[in-house]
Amino acid sequence: MTKPLNIGMIGYGFMGRAHTNGYKRVGDFFPELKYRPVLKAACARNKENIQAFADQWGYESIETDWKTLIARDDIDAVDICVPNNLHKEIAIACAEAGKMILCEKPIAMNTAEGEEMCQAVEKAGVANTVWYNYRRVPAVTLAKQIIDSGKLGKIFHYRANFLQDWTIAEDLPQGGAALWRLDADAAGSGVTGDLLAHCIDTAIWLNGSVSDVTAMTETFIKERVHQETGQKQKVSIDDACAFLCHFKNGSLGLFESTRYARGHKALYTFEINGENASLRWDLHDLHRLEMFDHADEGIVRGWKSIHVTDGDHPYMDKWWVPGLQIGYEHSFVHHVADFLKSLESGEPCHPTFRDALETQKVCDAVLASASDRSWHSVS
Amino acid sequence: MTKPLNIGMIGYGFMGRAHTNGYKRVGDFFPELKYRPVLKAACARNKENIQAFADQWGYESIETDWKTLIARDDIDAVDICVPNNLHKEIAIACAEAGKMILCEKPIAMNTAEGEEMCQAVEKAGVANTVWYNYRRVPAVTLAKQIIDSGKLGKIFHYRANFLQDWTIAEDLPQGGAALWRLDADAAGSGVTGDLLAHCIDTAIWLNGSVSDVTAMTETFIKERVHQETGQKQKVSIDDACAFLCHFKNGSLGLFESTRYARGHKALYTFEINGENASLRWDLHDLHRLEMFDHADEGIVRGWKSIHVTDGDHPYMDKWWVPGLQIGYEHSFVHHVADFLKSLESGEPCHPTFRDALETQKVCDAVLASASDRSWHSVS
Amino acid sequence: MTKPLNIGMIGYGFMGRAHTNGYKRVGDFFPELKYRPVLKAACARNKENIQAFADQWGYESIETDWKTLIARDDIDAVDICVPNNLHKEIAIACAEAGKMILCEKPIAMNTAEGEEMCQAVEKAGVANTVWYNYRRVPAVTLAKQIIDSGKLGKIFHYRANFLQDWTIAEDLPQGGAALWRLDADAAGSGVTGDLLAHCIDTAIWLNGSVSDVTAMTETFIKERVHQETGQKQKVSIDDACAFLCHFKNGSLGLFESTRYARGHKALYTFEINGENASLRWDLHDLHRLEMFDHADEGIVRGWKSIHVTDGDHPYMDKWWVPGLQIGYEHSFVHHVADFLKSLESGEPCHPTFRDALETQKVCDAVLASASDRSWHSVS
Amino acid sequence: MTKPLNIGMIGYGFMGRAHTNGYKRVGDFFPELKYRPVLKAACARNKENIQAFADQWGYESIETDWKTLIARDDIDAVDICVPNNLHKEIAIACAEAGKMILCEKPIAMNTAEGEEMCQAVEKAGVANTVWYNYRRVPAVTLAKQIIDSGKLGKIFHYRANFLQDWTIAEDLPQGGAALWRLDADAAGSGVTGDLLAHCIDTAIWLNGSVSDVTAMTETFIKERVHQETGQKQKVSIDDACAFLCHFKNGSLGLFESTRYARGHKALYTFEINGENASLRWDLHDLHRLEMFDHADEGIVRGWKSIHVTDGDHPYMDKWWVPGLQIGYEHSFVHHVADFLKSLESGEPCHPTFRDALETQKVCDAVLASASDRSWHSVS
Repeated sequence: MTKPLNIGMIGYGFMGRAHTNGYKRVGDFFPELKYRPVLKAACARNKENIQAFADQWGYESIETDWKTLIARDDIDAVDICVPNNLHKEIAIACAEAGKMILCEKPIAMNTAEGEEMCQAVEKAGVANTVWYNYRRVPAVTLAKQIIDSGKLGKIFHYRANFLQDWTIAEDLPQGGAALWRLDADAAGSGVTGDLLAHCIDTAIWLNGSVSDVTAMTETFIKERVHQETGQKQKVSIDDACAFLCHFKNGSLGLFESTRYARGHKALYTFEINGENASLRWDLHDLHRLEMFDHADEGIVRGWKSIHVTDGDHPYMDKWWVPGLQIGYEHSFVHHVADFLKSLESGEPCHPTFRDALETQKVCDAVLASASDRSWHSVS
Repeated sequence: MTKPLNIGMIGYGFMGRAHTNGYKRVGDFFPELKYRPVLKAACARNKENIQAFADQWGYESIETDWKTLIARDDIDAVDICVPNNLHKEIAIACAEAGKMILCEKPIAMNTAEGEEMCQAVEKAGVANTVWYNYRRVPAVTLAKQIIDSGKLGKIFHYRANFLQDWTIAEDLPQGGAALWRLDADAAGSGVTGDLLAHCIDTAIWLNGSVSDVTAMTETFIKERVHQETGQKQKVSIDDACAFLCHFKNGSLGLFESTRYARGHKALYTFEINGENASLRWDLHDLHRLEMFDHADEGIVRGWKSIHVTDGDHPYMDKWWVPGLQIGYEHSFVHHVADFLKSLESGEPCHPTFRDALETQKVCDAVLASASDRSWHSVS
Repeated sequence: MTKPLNIGMIGYGFMGRAHTNGYKRVGDFFPELKYRPVLKAACARNKENIQAFADQWGYESIETDWKTLIARDDIDAVDICVPNNLHKEIAIACAEAGKMILCEKPIAMNTAEGEEMCQAVEKAGVANTVWYNYRRVPAVTLAKQIIDSGKLGKIFHYRANFLQDWTIAEDLPQGGAALWRLDADAAGSGVTGDLLAHCIDTAIWLNGSVSDVTAMTETFIKERVHQETGQKQKVSIDDACAFLCHFKNGSLGLFESTRYARGHKALYTFEINGENASLRWDLHDLHRLEMFDHADEGIVRGWKSIHVTDGDHPYMDKWWVPGLQIGYEHSFVHHVADFLKSLESGEPCHPTFRDALETQKVCDAVLASASDRSWHSVS
Repeated sequence: MTKPLNIGMIGYGFMGRAHTNGYKRVGDFFPELKYRPVLKAACARNKENIQAFADQWGYESIETDWKTLIARDDIDAVDICVPNNLHKEIAIACAEAGKMILCEKPIAMNTAEGEEMCQAVEKAGVANTVWYNYRRVPAVTLAKQIIDSGKLGKIFHYRANFLQDWTIAEDLPQGGAALWRLDADAAGSGVTGDLLAHCIDTAIWLNGSVSDVTAMTETFIKERVHQETGQKQKVSIDDACAFLCHFKNGSLGLFESTRYARGHKALYTFEINGENASLRWDLHDLHRLEMFDHADEGIVRGWKSIHVTDGDHPYMDKWWVPGLQIGYEHSFVHHVADFLKSLESGEPCHPTFRDALETQKVCDAVLASASDRSWHSVS
């Protein structure tokens, strides 16, 4: 017998859709799971919008005040899909109400907020996870397996970037419901929290902690019309951010993110070079992992492109047959499945709030370094 | 207000899952459609298996006799997902019962059967379509748009192949529920109907009708244990098939399919060369379309790799944001969406049975040519 | 001490340059060879042109009559770089004069001519080779080594094509010194002898003899101005040619060649699929060989791209360092080197005339099949 | 009539071969040039080695003391192919002797030496150039043309790396004739001067001057046996170096180089992102340039892979036909050709000593930044 897990969703934007799709599909493809998400309630301030969202996706009810949502007895878990400046207050309230929490990344506006949130969930003992979804792209999970097997040996290098090009137009406004990611008051930072945070989360997962960083940021377009005021205002976010770092395992890191790389829609790539083997991955072809294995016979060594669609690849026994790829949205289905599994086992579902805080600390160090042009330790 | 469309599914194999997923997801991503599929009943002879399937996917009821299913008043449309040797009888019965029909490809065991089926659905006037799903991979649909725009000019060449490697092991058996595709009694043919038929359907859609063919087939492993008898029996299917052809537009075609191409899981590729531009596509990276446009300035001409994930690409406004790919299963969601749209408009949903018959005629000509080693016209 | 090998070159076109470059460079990069080519004489009917060629490349003298050249005592080896319709007469005269012969491919206008040439060189006992240069691209030579090692196991499939797009323009003329390849009187055939012959030579070398073929050819542009008459004349060559075949080892072959594949400049590719491994190669990136090895561990299997630039790759110890690629012209340097080596060892330098005759036989069977639309054995 | 240009080569290592090949081939492929290099003398301390080199390549004479070479009246131009710590003394002596100078990169051990060298050649008024050969890979030259045409618009990002893996083995020694690049006394620095210097030269050429940098370096293997002493000694070079920078045009730069990136033999890549278009290049496929052009029609936009082998591509009218690639060594032939042309025109042959000094200044700033962990201006 399956048990329902009643979900309360706060927010209805891009991530609201992606997470909801995860809840709806998990049972079809992971039928062995004990818990089954139920779309109990969706919440947002704008009643008309949230009603339309609930109708489209099949939420049973709506709320217009997140406090009311949290107060409901029939909600087991709250999904926080609102701008970053609201994460802390909602998450702490959820913890205090004993709700499980699935929080969109980055965890918070900054480390201080994140620390408060961690303490709240840990004190309350509620299940918690942060949606760094790329860990659960099968090719990325496979990378983790290969690295953990020791096949790469000592690691020398890690590099990652996340390149987009959608903000190059000067007449693009900032702020408001659609573009809050371009407003530091709502987002905390620009590409650092939005894009680099993904790169950092994966990097820490695959390669361990970061020791120190030197960084630069840039805001190429200095002023944009703000959608809430209709006025041209200073752009407060970083349009681009790059940093060098040392990992605690002695390897060197290089990270870059921008929304001004013409030709790249969402090019998240990483590469890791070890003594014996290397791996690289690219979100634009997320179903492939590339590997170079120095143990291969000399004359036939080369980078191999692994089409991660076989039954023995992570998560892929749940889907189709070899050669038939899955896509972006499946990473969320996998995250939901692993969250549900964690409820069965009692183990944490990584990344937890605490895990996500480590990424936040790197982001904060990066922004501080860019600001004062000096190396910063990640404490 | 949406209207329910009650689906009766016959079969529960790989395609049963893929189609069912299409029915379940279409409403979430195509909310503007008037009709909404309802998973009314699933049908198969084995009660335990079909019950488990119905439970997993949420079918409201089960049947163990397809005639009973068809007789039910609460079934609007029947989805035929059983081995090819059963298509004809079921489809004709459906037509006579006035049910809409969504039939898995190939339409039938041969042209004669297909012709009977066409006449039945046309006489009954029921909505009908055949699941040649690759037409609705966005990159393939985009290829169709580009070709129809005239951008390629006169066409000189079309080539396609569908390469797999999963039957190389000599100890793989044939027949039975899981491996009926390796048994000509159930499947009609081997790779010709299973794989090449896909290539042919797309080719006719993109490049028009085929005039004549010269072909060869091969059965590399001559005997395999049959799962129903437990005995070694002669392998009756074609393991590989290749043919040359002329299209009616004067272009030349080259087609190949095999399950013995080590290293290819499901490599369906096509390429079309026109006077002014060329296109190519590859199922292993189905979210990309490659194009060479001779109209580009000479020194910067090259094959461009179009990442078909933008809002103005076919179907992609329904999904995520630029750069985030979808996968194999989405082609079925699109097919369902287009079928539902066709019910609103009263237009046929292509490929209809009649369209699929044209593909069957090419398959039959190919097999006949391979058999008597001579060119065959496609009548 | 090195010994001079006096070369007499007949012709000064594209191949004249490519071969000459081979003679000039071989000593620098293969200093261990005993023989050193000396550019003794260049020969062509047009005195001004051949003098300019000799001046540019450093030939010591010129001739305007090939019979005079052959009669010279100071010529050891004759390089035949003239249109195909002249190969036979010159080659037989060379053989009778006891000259070594390096003949451009295809060996002749047809099998009958080739057979005469073979008998002449074999009777005379002179060293002979035909310039199927692609065998000596390091990646192709590596493919041969891997296949010969048995790593692929039983072979199921071989496919190759050679796609160009340079004759699509209707106003391109035919014939004359520059365009004799478009005139069947000079060339024997169109793409069959010019391009497919390369594919066939490599195929036979890698995969053994061809048994039988079914083919089609097409001439897309029916009339072109002939450069010698200034008149529009019927185009006599095949613009495109494709064929299916069986190899004697039981594998299936698919070959295609055209000069109407928009976007491909000189895309010669081949792929061979064996029971245990597969290989593919592409002239547009000639320094790479791709390999899939089923013996690799399951979860990390994939096509690997071997950058054939290491010191243990064929010929590559002679050039630069790993990662630094060589190009098209080096295949000719290697051919010269191997020819010189064969003089030291007394072994034949493959492909010999006799080897090249086998390719010619396949070409003839292909053209005959295309003409009478039936399967032809390769005798 | 051609004029001889008598070359005196100092050194006979990898670069000695590459340059010599350039001198020998330039006349064959650039017959219109007035000057023709003559291999007059080769010079090195080890008489046996230099004699062998001269014999292999055809130098007319040898010297064992570079001062004697420079003193010879029959030497017009001196090519400096010795370790970096000897560049300055030899170059200044050449300048004072009125010899033209072709100096291997990097120009010197540091900026101070380079400045002295610049002053010497400028005072003497002798022709001078530094062998940053990658500028003359046709795809890179094409990138320069496209950028100079303004097609990219305002530049936002530039990134480059040069990744190798040949020093990972712990038992590789350092120093001596073969491995002086691993000894800072001979090389000045490790990957910074050897590899990153190439990236920087190209970057400045394509994107203008660098303003300031923040860098890190690492020496992964701390001790290696020195070939001259036979003792384990501290490794003095940087094994890896990465830096962030601002260009004077406001764009951001990211550079990385290492010899510990398993799987990369000589992966020099760069990418430049402009407002309207982007370009990228990769030494492992040096005959291709990739371009994304936002001006392309929306639905068919994509990165295009330009196969830089057409007659209207830089330098390519000198070689073969479209589709047939050239290799690494050709960049040196082109450099020689451009140097000879510069003698005809009286214009400088870039990069001159002065140009190369700018690259040296960036290298010095990078090393200083890595040392004191602070941003450094490039003065």
